[in-house]
Amino acid sequence: MSKVFFDVGTSLDGFIAGPNGGRANPLGDGGIKIHDWMFAQKSFRQTLGMEGGETGNKDNDIIEKIFDRIGANIMGKRMFVEGEANWPEKAPFGVPVYVLTHQKRDPWERKGGTVFYFTDENIYDVLKKAKRDAGEKDVRISGGADTIRQFIDAGLIEEFSIHIAPILLSSGVRLFDGIDRDKLSFRILEVISSPNVTHLKYRVIK
Amino acid sequence: MSKVFFDVGTSLDGFIAGPNGGRANPLGDGGIKIHDWMFAQKSFRQTLGMEGGETGNKDNDIIEKIFDRIGANIMGKRMFVEGEANWPEKAPFGVPVYVLTHQKRDPWERKGGTVFYFTDENIYDVLKKAKRDAGEKDVRISGGADTIRQFIDAGLIEEFSIHIAPILLSSGVRLFDGIDRDKLSFRILEVISSPNVTHLKYRVIK
Repeated sequence: MSKVFFDVGTSLDGFIAGPNGGRANPLGDGGIKIHDWMFAQKSFRQTLGMEGGETGNKDNDIIEKIFDRIGANIMGKRMFVEGEANWPEKAPFGVPVYVLTHQKRDPWERKGGTVFYFTDENIYDVLKKAKRDAGEKDVRISGGADTIRQFIDAGLIEEFSIHIAPILLSSGVRLFDGIDRDKLSFRILEVISSPNVTHLKYRVIK
Repeated sequence: MSKVFFDVGTSLDGFIAGPNGGRANPLGDGGIKIHDWMFAQKSFRQTLGMEGGETGNKDNDIIEKIFDRIGANIMGKRMFVEGEANWPEKAPFGVPVYVLTHQKRDPWERKGGTVFYFTDENIYDVLKKAKRDAGEKDVRISGGADTIRQFIDAGLIEEFSIHIAPILLSSGVRLFDGIDRDKLSFRILEVISSPNVTHLKYRVIK
């Protein structure tokens, strides 16, 4: 059965990006360090059309599994704007991506199967379309934090994964900022660790 | 070799206590839930003189190991004030506890080997005394967050453990609030998970 999930990297102090992020500073000051473990892996580098990377380890396997389960993405406008300026021509999705924005824009097709659709519909209707596109696969709420919060508040998240990098950021964008604690109950599904990162996977309890 | 460490339970969103904590509301609103996994274990209940609890599982073993390594504690005044009003007669330490406070007060001896010493010396001098008391065992910086921050800022922490409960608190006291990210570099030492909590252990890199 198709699931709705989010999957984000964080610092140990809970930030998904550093401060001062934007087109010219993707992921904010120091934010890229959250994803050092990913950039070391072949499975992630491939999604960006990059050479090299490690294989045959837990981190690489986990990235492979995540990308394999995604049939469609939903993301906020700010994440898209930042990504648009920085993703390579082969954007790292390979499936439809719904961008929540009031800006009218025609679908934008990229190499490798990524198509960005721009929509100002409510999140329930957008999710319906993403689910239709995803078929048996899952729908990933890609981010940023505000978009994830909207889906949590609406009770639409069924699973989530957090990859905790062994760094502090001290400031920036917190994953769980402004989330009502009563909106998200969950249990531990899986914990996997490598020398570089700790992968936590949770199932939401309705 | 004797080590200086801290060891705290947090919510998934990084709080070590809920809001509105104090004598009459230890750990703040909802904060006790951070420690549900501990109260289920015999090894923790014993430190409080409580009956019952589970044995023969990872959580119980980890608590046993932690208490076994502690030769002395250092804690902030607010943590003491909250604890003083709520700990049972057999306080859950069994070793010397240095309380950082400007209040003059004679040492306070409790059942089971706990002795509270009240001091307004600087943290370096307090640590010297705690280390002397601890001998081959380790010194735990017990909390709260502000006291832990002082020891991090001074570069005195050598290891730390975080036990992440599968809950959100949304507000309260954050473990890593106000910590300069450049003051704490670390690597992953050990990750152990149970259905109730995820135990992360880090070694500080100088």
